[in-house]
Amino acid sequence: MNYRLTARILSYALLTEGALLLLPLAVALYYGESPAPFLYTIAIVAVLGGLLRLPKLRSQEFYAREGFVSVALAWIALSAFGALPFVFSGDIPFYVDALFETISGFTTTGASILSDVESLPNGILFWRSFTHWIGGMGILVFILAIMPMVQDRSIHIMRAEVPGPQVSKLVPRTRNTAAILYKIYLVMTLVLIGLLLLGDMPLFDAALHAFGAAGTGGFGIKNTSVGYYNSAYIDVVLGIFMILFSMNFNLYFMLLLGQVKDFFKNEEWRWYMIIIAATVILIAIDIYPMYGSESLRYSFFQVSSIISTTGYATTDFSLWPQLSRCLLLFIMLIGGCAGGTGGGVKVGRCIILMKSAGVEVHKLLHPRSVRRVSLDGKPVQDSVVHSTLVFFALYIFIIVVSVLLVSLDNLDFSSTFSAVMACISNIGPGLDVVGPMGNYGSLSAFSKVVLSLDMLLGRLEIFPMLALFSVFTKKK
Amino acid sequence: MNYRLTARILSYALLTEGALLLLPLAVALYYGESPAPFLYTIAIVAVLGGLLRLPKLRSQEFYAREGFVSVALAWIALSAFGALPFVFSGDIPFYVDALFETISGFTTTGASILSDVESLPNGILFWRSFTHWIGGMGILVFILAIMPMVQDRSIHIMRAEVPGPQVSKLVPRTRNTAAILYKIYLVMTLVLIGLLLLGDMPLFDAALHAFGAAGTGGFGIKNTSVGYYNSAYIDVVLGIFMILFSMNFNLYFMLLLGQVKDFFKNEEWRWYMIIIAATVILIAIDIYPMYGSESLRYSFFQVSSIISTTGYATTDFSLWPQLSRCLLLFIMLIGGCAGGTGGGVKVGRCIILMKSAGVEVHKLLHPRSVRRVSLDGKPVQDSVVHSTLVFFALYIFIIVVSVLLVSLDNLDFSSTFSAVMACISNIGPGLDVVGPMGNYGSLSAFSKVVLSLDMLLGRLEIFPMLALFSVFTKKK
Repeated sequence: MNYRLTARILSYALLTEGALLLLPLAVALYYGESPAPFLYTIAIVAVLGGLLRLPKLRSQEFYAREGFVSVALAWIALSAFGALPFVFSGDIPFYVDALFETISGFTTTGASILSDVESLPNGILFWRSFTHWIGGMGILVFILAIMPMVQDRSIHIMRAEVPGPQVSKLVPRTRNTAAILYKIYLVMTLVLIGLLLLGDMPLFDAALHAFGAAGTGGFGIKNTSVGYYNSAYIDVVLGIFMILFSMNFNLYFMLLLGQVKDFFKNEEWRWYMIIIAATVILIAIDIYPMYGSESLRYSFFQVSSIISTTGYATTDFSLWPQLSRCLLLFIMLIGGCAGGTGGGVKVGRCIILMKSAGVEVHKLLHPRSVRRVSLDGKPVQDSVVHSTLVFFALYIFIIVVSVLLVSLDNLDFSSTFSAVMACISNIGPGLDVVGPMGNYGSLSAFSKVVLSLDMLLGRLEIFPMLALFSVFTKKK
Repeated sequence: MNYRLTARILSYALLTEGALLLLPLAVALYYGESPAPFLYTIAIVAVLGGLLRLPKLRSQEFYAREGFVSVALAWIALSAFGALPFVFSGDIPFYVDALFETISGFTTTGASILSDVESLPNGILFWRSFTHWIGGMGILVFILAIMPMVQDRSIHIMRAEVPGPQVSKLVPRTRNTAAILYKIYLVMTLVLIGLLLLGDMPLFDAALHAFGAAGTGGFGIKNTSVGYYNSAYIDVVLGIFMILFSMNFNLYFMLLLGQVKDFFKNEEWRWYMIIIAATVILIAIDIYPMYGSESLRYSFFQVSSIISTTGYATTDFSLWPQLSRCLLLFIMLIGGCAGGTGGGVKVGRCIILMKSAGVEVHKLLHPRSVRRVSLDGKPVQDSVVHSTLVFFALYIFIIVVSVLLVSLDNLDFSSTFSAVMACISNIGPGLDVVGPMGNYGSLSAFSKVVLSLDMLLGRLEIFPMLALFSVFTKKK
């Protein structure tokens, strides 16, 4: 392990967080609120970030191990310090709660322990939603984009931080790839803010909802989430953009380059559309008795919000019939596309899983067959198929263990199960106690820690966290 | 596909079923009940079995495909006709219900649609429990054991019918292996009957409970299942034997041959013991407030019953705290050992899954590592690891789809989810509506068909059913 380089990366991450905290600081000042919570936090991360810069680099050695461990450590550190403004402001006095809320923010989960968000000051609300935006595309990818760093080894950072079974560089240099991704992300966020303004949403609300949608986070700033605005226009705009942000950003780059053919070759987004359409129709039929002609609107918004792993709500979907509830749990597991800001197992992985099963059955029936799993017309490497299968098994294993741990709270089964699903897949609201009109506040501190770990495991796709754990428990 | 040979195997299966039906017929006559339901059924399977013998065999070609398809078809046919006595006797007049009950019997699930089993005549009760005993070790393995058939290709039948990731022949000839397994099975069943008689259980009850335990089925013959006898002795005897029957029978063969070293090298049963001990202790602590000093007895019996996938109950575990309920759901998923009569994913597969994850993390951190998954000190073939991973993904996929389909009944989530878990893992009782004191009778016919398919998929470990489906939908 190159510990010095890892410290350097942590230093960059903390200093960047300090810089990003200037934005909520400005918002607090603009609204005449106390700037102290942000000033204190900035001071702490600046000093710590400075100290971590001190060790001189001895080598530029940077392999997969360093990539995974740096990313995992950076996310933990960012959350640990990003939680401080909530504590300093007194809005979330208990640190475990503040940490839960911040991890929920950075991992773009959107699970909240707050029962009354409307009482928060604007600066704090801004920081809370802004963590979604930062976490959506990944903070280390951001650092890659703006700073010249460990040159061409930085692919290991992208591999650890960008969701999906494979990471493809758009352009030869990782740094330029990261910059392109962030530019697309920024422009799409601005377009969404503009469209929300056209729907008569105030600028502050529009910006914060755009952060939440862009990162597919889902922290609301009203107690009834997006339902507060009760506008079909806003529902449709947010509904469409949540899906767009949870798709592979490489696709947008293809379109920008005019590679329409490659765009249509991509299987993942086509399957994504099919799954969304099927789920929207099934739920619309299922909830028709409750909403009549409005059922399609509610169904589309909720499916988009859940499958993109955002978690906004326009109604209490906990009260829907069991089929709709189960369909929502099902698409929680699937999640968004690789290379987007969404969580879950990812559509691309699900395609690989299904195709592996098909190949396996074919091989059983025709033992000499050489059929292989292919995606977008190209064969998928065996190692990618294998690691996808292992990833899925681990994902289920983590869900099972987490359900057991959270069950100690003795909530009903659907609350327990959906809390874990909603956290590991980075959605936010689950069903019943932790449903869209409930919150995670009543859970024990132990459950909050378990669910916080689930959020990190889900966002970083398990392996960086396991790598961190493995490096720190095993002697070299 | 060698259709003629497949027909021949089906013919053997049906004729064997006809012969086995002579036992409940004798029981019915002994108790002075109407023999008609069994006579009619015997006549039908005899005629059909005879007709299927007519096509002359043109070749002895018998590959994996024929093995999988024959096993799947045989199980479906045995269930379809095995359901007739329930219909003819009028005890389960609705055919879908009778089919559910019979599939539940043969697959050793033990899920029942009956609300009052005590009202059934003894002949019918005997047949119901006897299907467990037949299904436990596998009917085609039985046929292999008693008849000279497609000689050395018959390993394909064992591979399709005997649970676990790998099948090992105990002796060079498959037929002899099958005979040894059945002898061990028979002796253990007789020992259990003897021990239950010592516990003052009537002979009829002892035999039927032994059938249920041997097959790890779990049909009770009292409305309160084993709780009726309220005997700590019976609880302990059944508890131990359910575990013994769900372990790999090869182990007993090793012990018979005095290969104690090989016995202790086996990782699967040691992990099985660890999982059982840990779960028993956790649940005993969790339910201590409900049962006091009796909590260990209830915990041991229930854990043994569920992890062995039997499904007997001595109390309504649906009412236990959420941790215990979730632990039971968790061990439902794990199930018994490969090569035993239990269902579920199997302990051996879980070990391979966990070790694969460890190897994967190690490879990420040390890309040039050549570490491999090993079991019992020997490396596991890559193809076995791969097919285990695919099996697990398919298992979860089937659970998810089944939950969606059963959710149409609009039961609460824990009933819906546990019904699917209890059926695919061949346990029987789930939680709440389908809990040990409830039954599957109130579910829709559609749900019953879905759950029946789950039971078959679980018992035959997915691939034979998929092979059947694949052969009949694709033009070769």
